[in-house]
Amino acid sequence: MIPTRSVPDVLLRARDLVSPALRRAVRTLSPELRPLAEYHLGWCDADGRAVAGADSGKGIRPALAVLSAEAVGVPGAVGVPGAVAVELVHNYSLIHDDVVDEDTERRHRPTVWALYGVGRAVIVGDALVALAQQVVLDPHGTCLADGVGAVGAVDDGVLLPAGETGPGTPGGADRLGSFSLGAGARAARCIADANAAMIAGQALDMAFESVPVVDVAGCLAMEAGKTGALLACASAIGAILGGADSATVASLTTYGMELGLAFQAVDDLLGIWGDPGVTGKPAWSDLRQHKKTLPVAAALGEGGPEAEELASLLASEHLEESQVARAAHLVEICGGRQSAIEEADRRLASALRAIEEASIDPKAAAELADVARFVVDREH
Amino acid sequence: MIPTRSVPDVLLRARDLVSPALRRAVRTLSPELRPLAEYHLGWCDADGRAVAGADSGKGIRPALAVLSAEAVGVPGAVGVPGAVAVELVHNYSLIHDDVVDEDTERRHRPTVWALYGVGRAVIVGDALVALAQQVVLDPHGTCLADGVGAVGAVDDGVLLPAGETGPGTPGGADRLGSFSLGAGARAARCIADANAAMIAGQALDMAFESVPVVDVAGCLAMEAGKTGALLACASAIGAILGGADSATVASLTTYGMELGLAFQAVDDLLGIWGDPGVTGKPAWSDLRQHKKTLPVAAALGEGGPEAEELASLLASEHLEESQVARAAHLVEICGGRQSAIEEADRRLASALRAIEEASIDPKAAAELADVARFVVDREH
Repeated sequence: MIPTRSVPDVLLRARDLVSPALRRAVRTLSPELRPLAEYHLGWCDADGRAVAGADSGKGIRPALAVLSAEAVGVPGAVGVPGAVAVELVHNYSLIHDDVVDEDTERRHRPTVWALYGVGRAVIVGDALVALAQQVVLDPHGTCLADGVGAVGAVDDGVLLPAGETGPGTPGGADRLGSFSLGAGARAARCIADANAAMIAGQALDMAFESVPVVDVAGCLAMEAGKTGALLACASAIGAILGGADSATVASLTTYGMELGLAFQAVDDLLGIWGDPGVTGKPAWSDLRQHKKTLPVAAALGEGGPEAEELASLLASEHLEESQVARAAHLVEICGGRQSAIEEADRRLASALRAIEEASIDPKAAAELADVARFVVDREH
Repeated sequence: MIPTRSVPDVLLRARDLVSPALRRAVRTLSPELRPLAEYHLGWCDADGRAVAGADSGKGIRPALAVLSAEAVGVPGAVGVPGAVAVELVHNYSLIHDDVVDEDTERRHRPTVWALYGVGRAVIVGDALVALAQQVVLDPHGTCLADGVGAVGAVDDGVLLPAGETGPGTPGGADRLGSFSLGAGARAARCIADANAAMIAGQALDMAFESVPVVDVAGCLAMEAGKTGALLACASAIGAILGGADSATVASLTTYGMELGLAFQAVDDLLGIWGDPGVTGKPAWSDLRQHKKTLPVAAALGEGGPEAEELASLLASEHLEESQVARAAHLVEICGGRQSAIEEADRRLASALRAIEEASIDPKAAAELADVARFVVDREH
């Protein structure tokens, strides 16, 4: 792979747009839950003290949501409720995944359940999902309270139908703040579908734990759910909120899904061969944990004595250091590493093609391509 | 209280409408999760064998959703996706609450987490929430696949905006199956808001565990979230899907919230003085568990030596049988029992008033009143 690229400007630009809105949305949580969410997001420490300059993550998802609005000719701000909703869903999934996987650390800090208990971790995750839906169905009082958008008519807590603008009429009347009620419904559906697909992927991942071998197709299906679905949603939700036609939404969805699969292939490569000094994880980390990732699935699929040796190594309860090294070597000589590299390249090419073929704003298209290359060329 | 009433016909009628749709919706879950959901719902045993004639619960929520559609002059079937969504949210909350409370039994069967582990219980709960949103935002492929309704236009998994019908025009064109996209958005918001309120109530309940005394106002705020919010949503969602005006939706919401608070006051009474032979719980069950329910809060609020004795009893780690009996007696002589009875009666009256004052179908209004009286007069 080529050297790591410089960070695309759009990541910082989108973060500046989305971060304040995300903070406002989180501020609407009940006082019992807000500190847990703010701790998880890295905004405060375990004692509730604010952490200076903290905004976790690379900001890929917010950038995609903002760019997908710009891609259909509306201001990036139109995509902000979508970006906030996607970030909330992403973070709920991390909090619940840490419970499921019994992981005690994330980014060198105790996980939410490790600090506050399983019960509270479950509940605060649930709260973030509900909030995500509220944000796209009613920006009033959640993320857009500062005037980026505001609900036209709310009566006794019940949203009044604000009329519908058809596809391609982003400037229509009777809008729900900066987007129509119909667009909000489509965005809410995009979020619900992505959430359902993520959960199905997670369920598949859990089922894989109790089988000895997973094939490449199974692995890709799981990764499409766990990683692809939410990136696909992020890449389309700004366009949806902007009133895009369904062909454009479909192209952006394809871009996001392919990008997600490319991202995950790179993640799987880094999980075995990533530089510990850069990834923060020990060498061959995923093999130590017997994770059935793409390079392993591809290697096992090759068959032959090396693949059989690999399978029997991975079937043993505990691996010695020398055995982990041997397993990594076996994955490589069975072609697992090369196969994952090719998968990443193929998915990246497919994502870029989806963007090229879509009828979208050229500047946004170029930035979407930049983000895709950045994601695939990263070293951590 | 007067003797238990006969079961209103509408409960069975609504169950016949809603059960098949709920089963179809659950059938769309991934194969790893569906058995857990079906086990929890009482449809199958731990080995996945179907349980004959099993439909858990009294069917109050489905009845409310169906009646709220009929209340605004549309067929009860229009409320079915709302009823399904509410049932899914109710059951997700039970599954997660059992994890949070570490309860190992529900209705004399092991809870989902006790049988399948915490991780899978968290995930299947998450799946039900996502499904609830999908059901109201896209009945296609979920609960309405048999032709009760169907999406007019779906392209590459993306919902095409189907136009919007304003309030009071339930028969308008361009509908999403049996309801418009705008109505689906309002229903989705109703679900998201109820879910958020339930979670806030649950968070408050957890916070109450670490304080010695809870006042009546705090108790009611918690119960409004934990119990009232979803019944309020159930009572309005059929009307929302039917395109009701906001005044009618507000009246039905008030009815459901007041009914929820009446229901919970009765639940709190039964939790202490319910007949063990009817409730299936030991006498004074809630006091044994030091639950800070309405009768206890009201009794403690009275002050005086008996209230102080009660407070010190409830503050002790373990209560002997004679101490539990004494605590129950103290709650009674401090007026806690009477206060909860009056709360239930007052809330019931308020629910009935909301129905009387609403401009709704008289037959549905009479049935809503029947359901309310049935809920409050129950003995278990």
